[in-house]
Amino acid sequence: MHIICTQENLLNSINIVLKAVSTKTTLPILQCILLKTNDVGVTLVGTNLELGIESNLDANIIEEGTIALEAKIFSEIIRKMPSGEVELKLDVSNHMVTIICQKSKFKIASHEVSVFPKLPKIATTTEYSIEQCLLKDMIRQTIFSVSQEDTRPVLTGELFEIRDGLFNVVAVDGFRIAYRCTSVEGEMPDIAVVVPAKTLNEISKILLADPEEIKFYVDENHIMFDLGESRVVSRLLEGEFLKYQQVFSQDYETCITLNRKQLLMSIERAALISREGKKNPIKIEINEEQMVITSQTELGAVREELDIVLQGKRLNIAFNPKYLIEILKAIEEEVVVINFISSLTPCIIRPEIGNHFKYLVLPIRLKAD
Amino acid sequence: MHIICTQENLLNSINIVLKAVSTKTTLPILQCILLKTNDVGVTLVGTNLELGIESNLDANIIEEGTIALEAKIFSEIIRKMPSGEVELKLDVSNHMVTIICQKSKFKIASHEVSVFPKLPKIATTTEYSIEQCLLKDMIRQTIFSVSQEDTRPVLTGELFEIRDGLFNVVAVDGFRIAYRCTSVEGEMPDIAVVVPAKTLNEISKILLADPEEIKFYVDENHIMFDLGESRVVSRLLEGEFLKYQQVFSQDYETCITLNRKQLLMSIERAALISREGKKNPIKIEINEEQMVITSQTELGAVREELDIVLQGKRLNIAFNPKYLIEILKAIEEEVVVINFISSLTPCIIRPEIGNHFKYLVLPIRLKAD
Repeated sequence: MHIICTQENLLNSINIVLKAVSTKTTLPILQCILLKTNDVGVTLVGTNLELGIESNLDANIIEEGTIALEAKIFSEIIRKMPSGEVELKLDVSNHMVTIICQKSKFKIASHEVSVFPKLPKIATTTEYSIEQCLLKDMIRQTIFSVSQEDTRPVLTGELFEIRDGLFNVVAVDGFRIAYRCTSVEGEMPDIAVVVPAKTLNEISKILLADPEEIKFYVDENHIMFDLGESRVVSRLLEGEFLKYQQVFSQDYETCITLNRKQLLMSIERAALISREGKKNPIKIEINEEQMVITSQTELGAVREELDIVLQGKRLNIAFNPKYLIEILKAIEEEVVVINFISSLTPCIIRPEIGNHFKYLVLPIRLKAD
Repeated sequence: MHIICTQENLLNSINIVLKAVSTKTTLPILQCILLKTNDVGVTLVGTNLELGIESNLDANIIEEGTIALEAKIFSEIIRKMPSGEVELKLDVSNHMVTIICQKSKFKIASHEVSVFPKLPKIATTTEYSIEQCLLKDMIRQTIFSVSQEDTRPVLTGELFEIRDGLFNVVAVDGFRIAYRCTSVEGEMPDIAVVVPAKTLNEISKILLADPEEIKFYVDENHIMFDLGESRVVSRLLEGEFLKYQQVFSQDYETCITLNRKQLLMSIERAALISREGKKNPIKIEINEEQMVITSQTELGAVREELDIVLQGKRLNIAFNPKYLIEILKAIEEEVVVINFISSLTPCIIRPEIGNHFKYLVLPIRLKAD
């Protein structure tokens, strides 16, 4: 293998596949990036067996071949190289790869390429597509609600569901549900698969903040995202996801409308006293014209007042402030609506305008004090 | 105590004194910020017994008094408050302080103010002054060479020396010396004191990047920096500092002139292979027209070539790359000159233009391989 490419293109491809390279593993080959010549030029590959990423590199191929370089040192070398042409050349006699850029020359060892795992092939040609910026937003606005605990592995991922003309992304832990949807163009077969949160975190970093399309393909065990110059393949999570539709009730006894940012800042301040956790929730008192947030701990006491518009009954309720803060940060709209049934049942938070996003959170039961 | 001030001014004063507040201490009062009313308005004070900072706050005083608030929660509350007027009021019956800003109200406890340590008074009126941006630069360009080990405590600080019309700042560890000077205006009494690096790190963060003057005062045990609206008092380190002048020889056998940034980037790349440490130094070979940097370890091999102008003899020498990288980052000038005597004696690095800065570093002795 002997190729010439630019430092910028090579670094860009390295940075993409690096997201799938293991840093902690007992298999040394998983710490490597594979570079192989083919019809499109050169393809770089990284994988940790759960997640695999391929990226195309535009290169001048002088001699075909395949090498596997330890990702950490290889990426550091290319990152520190001056911009311009970089030459990579394998010496087959000793498996050493020479990297030359201007007057800088490195030699590092290529690992045995035959043991590098193959990325899974997707057993379908059914193609879904979505704007990259939209998918990025849908992930950002839900992923914080994914379960952090391994007791029910399926809840450590997000549901990707296509049905009734909607693409739904849903995250659930024991205390809350985040739901985001968008309408689907054309007739598409229904799907309901659970994608690991780790995969979605990594793909979010690759997704552009512009409306260019990303395609994805789903089979029984894997999902593959095709970004044109790069492809991400991930295994899916097994198990039954929560039947989330049933819990989003339309009923309410108390409905309030208020400014999102003011509410967020008041809860963030109240959380300074309550700190996180069940023992010291923030208490919310909903009156005709205002919401009063209070908390009292060994640190001191806080009282916050906010103007609201109330429909229905007054209510006293308590929450872990963390859950409210995360959702209020995920919403971009200026005004939010919150529906309550009682102080013991979940509330539903959504932007005042649109129905593409809703969020459910359980209250904390207060002692009868 | 009952005062009204703006959130912006209060936060600014808190952020300044916070730099002296202990985070880990067995004395709870040292985790507090003291606020006391006086002729200038209100003064905030933080201290960890080694370093103390006072800052003036422009406030409307409704009732005089003194309070001591736990710095962490107090600073977080003020940081999260909306901008505008903040009111602080002590209830003497229960030592609780009410903090009100718009519709947000906190109550936190004031600690016992009588146990808050007094800042030392400086027993001199002799005043030195220097531009803030210049002092900030002098600290930045030397402080990385301060000893990190407590075996000789005096070397964990920087020498502040005024003599022969120069203000010298010097840092020394076992392997290198960083020296920076500036000329002193007028006739000033000589001084030679050692200021703890921790103090200088904190004062650097307060110093402005503009030519406004800072005054300082020195007595036997303390140094006090007066920034107008705030004052920093620090104890001095005891012990004899290194006689640094004698080691900066003017002699050389090999003198090279080369581009600073190219040298820095080549050494940073070579350090990827050598990693830090005595076992794997970078080797430097100085020829008529070029410097060749090499390193070989289990990670691989590197060879870097750089154009130089040589006066004197060829030379082979080896260094810990960390020391060269830090100095080359501290210098701003485009071209540097390096003087060598032999492969076993220290080299001296300085910018080509000016003599306000020089740096000495010990080479690593290579095995006769």
